Amino acid sequence: MDINFLLFEQFETLDLFGPVEICGRHPDFQLHYISQNGGLVTSTQGVRIDTEPQRNMNTSGVLVIPGGAGTRTLIKEEPFLKNLRRLSEDASFVLSVCTGSALLARCGILEEKRATSNKRAFDWVVSTSDKVHWIRKARWVHDGKFYTSSGISAGMDMTLGFIRDRFGAPAAERIACRMEYIWNKNPDIDFFGT
Amino acid sequence: MDINFLLFEQFETLDLFGPVEICGRHPDFQLHYISQNGGLVTSTQGVRIDTEPQRNMNTSGVLVIPGGAGTRTLIKEEPFLKNLRRLSEDASFVLSVCTGSALLARCGILEEKRATSNKRAFDWVVSTSDKVHWIRKARWVHDGKFYTSSGISAGMDMTLGFIRDRFGAPAAERIACRMEYIWNKNPDIDFFGT
Repeated sequence: MDINFLLFEQFETLDLFGPVEICGRHPDFQLHYISQNGGLVTSTQGVRIDTEPQRNMNTSGVLVIPGGAGTRTLIKEEPFLKNLRRLSEDASFVLSVCTGSALLARCGILEEKRATSNKRAFDWVVSTSDKVHWIRKARWVHDGKFYTSSGISAGMDMTLGFIRDRFGAPAAERIACRMEYIWNKNPDIDFFGT
Repeated sequence: MDINFLLFEQFETLDLFGPVEICGRHPDFQLHYISQNGGLVTSTQGVRIDTEPQRNMNTSGVLVIPGGAGTRTLIKEEPFLKNLRRLSEDASFVLSVCTGSALLARCGILEEKRATSNKRAFDWVVSTSDKVHWIRKARWVHDGKFYTSSGISAGMDMTLGFIRDRFGAPAAERIACRMEYIWNKNPDIDFFGT
C-alpha cells in the first residue's frame, strides 16, 4: 500500500513526521514524500526535505496532508485546490493532520462529512467551508474514507487509529509500544477541544 | 541559543523531529540540522533531509543526537566517536534520544553519569559501556549537562523537561498545549521499562 505524504512550503514538522514514524513501522506500507514539482520543501521549523514530483505518484494510494502556516495561503490558490480535489477523489483513504483539513474543506471534498482540526485555529478552519460538519471536541474524526485529526500531536493518535481500523488493534498497539508511545486511543477524548 | 541536531545515515525519524517541533516553538532557539559533511541525510523511514556541514556549527550550543539503526555501525567508527566526544565536551547541553545514548556512552563522555535509552535495545546499549550508571526504568534521565531519553517518543517528553528546567514550567506547558501534546512530564514514570 502506497502512503503518499503531500508536502508544501511551510508545513508543520510533526504533522508530517509523527505519521511518517508510525507508517514506516508497518511492513505493508511504502512511504512517498511528494510535492507538486518535487525537490526540497521547507517546514515551518526550517527542515528541508527532499520530495518526489507528483507525476510519479500512485494516486490510488493513501493520501496524507499535514497542516501548518502554509495552509493560510494555499486555501486561496485555486490550482492547488483543484489538484488536491482530484488527488483526494482518487485516493483510497485521505488523512489530514491539524489545519490540513482546511485545505480538504476548501477544495470541497469534505462536503456533508464530519471532520475536525487544530483547536487553536478552529474558527479559521470552520470559516473555510460551511458545508462540513465540524466537530470541535474530538482527537480525530473518521468519516468514510476520510480521517481528520486535531492539532499536530493528534496526527499520531489518528494514524494509529487508522492502522487499528485496517489491520486490527494488536498491529497498532505493537507499533505504539515499539515507539514507546503512550497512545491516546479514544478519538472522542480530547483535552484541548472546548 | 543554537540547537544543533547532529544527523547521520539511518537516524530514526521521530527521534529527531519530535524535539525539532518542540524546540522550533521556543523563541530563543535557533535550529540547525548538521552532519559531518553536510548535504542530504536519510532516515530509517526514507526521509531525506538537507544538512549544514559541521564546520559551520557553533559548538557551544545545545547538541541533540537521535538514535536509530545507524547507531549500530557508528559505535564502531572511531573518527565519528572522537568527533562526537569533542562536540559533546564543547556543548552547553547534550540531549540524546533513544539509542543516541549508546553513541555518547561509547565515546566516553557519559562515564560515571546516570543515563537511559530505548527499552527494547537496552541490553545492547548497556554493552557499549560498563562505566555508565544505566537507569532501566525512566522516561528520561538528567545528569549535569546531559539529558538522555528512552525510545523515540520519549524524546518529546525529555525536550519539554529540558525547557522546563531552563525556562520554567509555564514555558514548557505552553508549547505542549499549542502542539495539543499530552506531555508525560514525570521522568520517573515509565510504562515501557521493566
